[in-house]
Amino acid sequence: MTAQVPRGLAGVVVTETVLGDVRGREGFYHYREYSAVELAATRTFEDVWHLMLEGSLPSAAEGASFARRVAALRTLPDDVRAALPAIARASAASGPMSGLRTALSLTGAAAGFRPVYDLTADERREDALLAGAVVPTLLAALYRLGQGLEPVEPRADLGHAANYLYMLSGREPAPEHARAVERYLISTIDHGFNASTFAGRVIASTGADVAACLVGGIAALSGPLHGGAPSRALDTLDAIGTPERIQSWVRERVLAGDRIMGFGHPVYRTEDPRSRMLREIALGFGGPLVEFAVEVERQVEAILAELKPGRELHTNVEFYAGVVMEQCGLPRAMFTPTFAVARVVGWTANILEQAADSKIIRPAARYVGPPPPVPVPAA
Amino acid sequence: MTAQVPRGLAGVVVTETVLGDVRGREGFYHYREYSAVELAATRTFEDVWHLMLEGSLPSAAEGASFARRVAALRTLPDDVRAALPAIARASAASGPMSGLRTALSLTGAAAGFRPVYDLTADERREDALLAGAVVPTLLAALYRLGQGLEPVEPRADLGHAANYLYMLSGREPAPEHARAVERYLISTIDHGFNASTFAGRVIASTGADVAACLVGGIAALSGPLHGGAPSRALDTLDAIGTPERIQSWVRERVLAGDRIMGFGHPVYRTEDPRSRMLREIALGFGGPLVEFAVEVERQVEAILAELKPGRELHTNVEFYAGVVMEQCGLPRAMFTPTFAVARVVGWTANILEQAADSKIIRPAARYVGPPPPVPVPAA
Repeated sequence: MTAQVPRGLAGVVVTETVLGDVRGREGFYHYREYSAVELAATRTFEDVWHLMLEGSLPSAAEGASFARRVAALRTLPDDVRAALPAIARASAASGPMSGLRTALSLTGAAAGFRPVYDLTADERREDALLAGAVVPTLLAALYRLGQGLEPVEPRADLGHAANYLYMLSGREPAPEHARAVERYLISTIDHGFNASTFAGRVIASTGADVAACLVGGIAALSGPLHGGAPSRALDTLDAIGTPERIQSWVRERVLAGDRIMGFGHPVYRTEDPRSRMLREIALGFGGPLVEFAVEVERQVEAILAELKPGRELHTNVEFYAGVVMEQCGLPRAMFTPTFAVARVVGWTANILEQAADSKIIRPAARYVGPPPPVPVPAA
Repeated sequence: MTAQVPRGLAGVVVTETVLGDVRGREGFYHYREYSAVELAATRTFEDVWHLMLEGSLPSAAEGASFARRVAALRTLPDDVRAALPAIARASAASGPMSGLRTALSLTGAAAGFRPVYDLTADERREDALLAGAVVPTLLAALYRLGQGLEPVEPRADLGHAANYLYMLSGREPAPEHARAVERYLISTIDHGFNASTFAGRVIASTGADVAACLVGGIAALSGPLHGGAPSRALDTLDAIGTPERIQSWVRERVLAGDRIMGFGHPVYRTEDPRSRMLREIALGFGGPLVEFAVEVERQVEAILAELKPGRELHTNVEFYAGVVMEQCGLPRAMFTPTFAVARVVGWTANILEQAADSKIIRPAARYVGPPPPVPVPAA
């Protein structure tokens, strides 16, 4: 029995979920029953992490307890710490996502992660929390080692976002920078079904351990076709350079058939709600970069509306995410890894949901080569 | 637009392939246009590797040249070598599959693998060959480090299977052992579409690098629901112990609803052709283990035919694979990793095929939680 489905399984429902959804026509997305953007405006990263993994927003006391619990999981096992310099050297050329992929794989092994198939729901959640907690530590340590600097130990008295910035720079971040990055992280924890979430769930469906599932997610996120790369949009701003060059630069690219990085989204037919939130944050900081970005957005949208009428191409999450991360002092090489800091929480929620099902995800392929068996010729 | 499909995408065709197929009703499977079992009987591992990646069986001269080319890729980069002791320590508890997952991820980074999206077909194939070539070196080194032994350098004058056995034990294997393992490896390079192959192709569809795709395959293979674990079948033989215990042991398990490891396959409705080939190899070696295995097979098949009529439950690949690997002196902990030595070649062939497509694999999920947006309560 075979079912005919669209290429790339587009629109094919492979699972039910209670974790959230994206409503592309409305420009709205949600985590469980809450608007993700509203959560980002009013809650801490840890509160939303609790929502995703425990199923509900915590009370003040529950939230504080949960924050202490995950903060205690930030410290790396010794075997991981010992291997990080070699991982940092090896991934110098291929980039921080391959470093994270390796280091998180190692951390899962060192922490003794066992197949989710053999674990209780509580044990699975414990592994998921540990994985989410160590990703910032791993990324910051690999980044600093790559810069020839000593890693900075995590501080349990700082929130998830503030501690991440602290471990990267070695300096306690300004509260408004920590909060801006925290809002960005909350807004990118999850975003419907995408290739990395799906890769993680395919692996989870085999009953593999949480780290095995997560390396699949990281691996898929590292693919250029997955989508976002907030540094690309900023590179575009740099390439344009000055307001008077916008028209010629953009028209030339669009007429040549090139995509303008930071514009357009496969699902949203309206403004990307993450973009709206991040623009507001960027404008709060002010400065020449955001003024230039707003002008580029205005002119590019007008040019795209003129040259590609009816396509509804607006800024996507990566456009203003890049601006905000630059304003908060994050190194540009860490933009995509920072996305992973948030998304790992979404992946773990998806992995736990998939692991509660016992059905392996195993589709089929159609053989279209020459009919077998052809006799094997002698060597 | 959403399509209704069976749970777990069972039977849903996600891609066309020219790499091979399984005909469950006929007890037949093939690589490209050739019977896989016939290839295993008449060709070297390297010849079939060439078939999978280059598209054709090599001439004698091409085969020798290809064998030299992959043998030259067996040596590990220095940064990988330096990190292996820490990886071996970290994966001591979680097992060799998590060690391989980490070490191959590191090797891809150290070798400077770039996203397949950015590579020519030749560059992709080069990365795929390197990955296939280093897997035995990584596994053997991690195994020996775990035993407190120094890793053994690969030897370019030995074939792929013989060199793997040599690196594990430090001794050149008997030719009949090397050939038996080689036939097993050839017969497990590929086997239709399965969860690990699919995971690798999902990641490849994002344009990620070859190592990223392969860690997804390794991760999925490590899941208990993926299927094979040749050591389990051997553990069953150990648990039964003696011929006179077969009846009571097996009847008790079957009546309790337990699966008998080494019997039954989701696709084959006849004898598994790999099982037939491996039984023949095992009988060629002879000895008490294979005599006992044949007796267990005879009695279990009779009991299953009686208690589960119409189910056509026969030995699967793991039953005699375990016997053959034990006869050839492979440590039991290395049975599943040895499967990965073969399957990595099949994964890379699938990854290259997927990478030639430019369509991301991105299905959908249906949100079934409470309707949003519910106002976010104050913290």
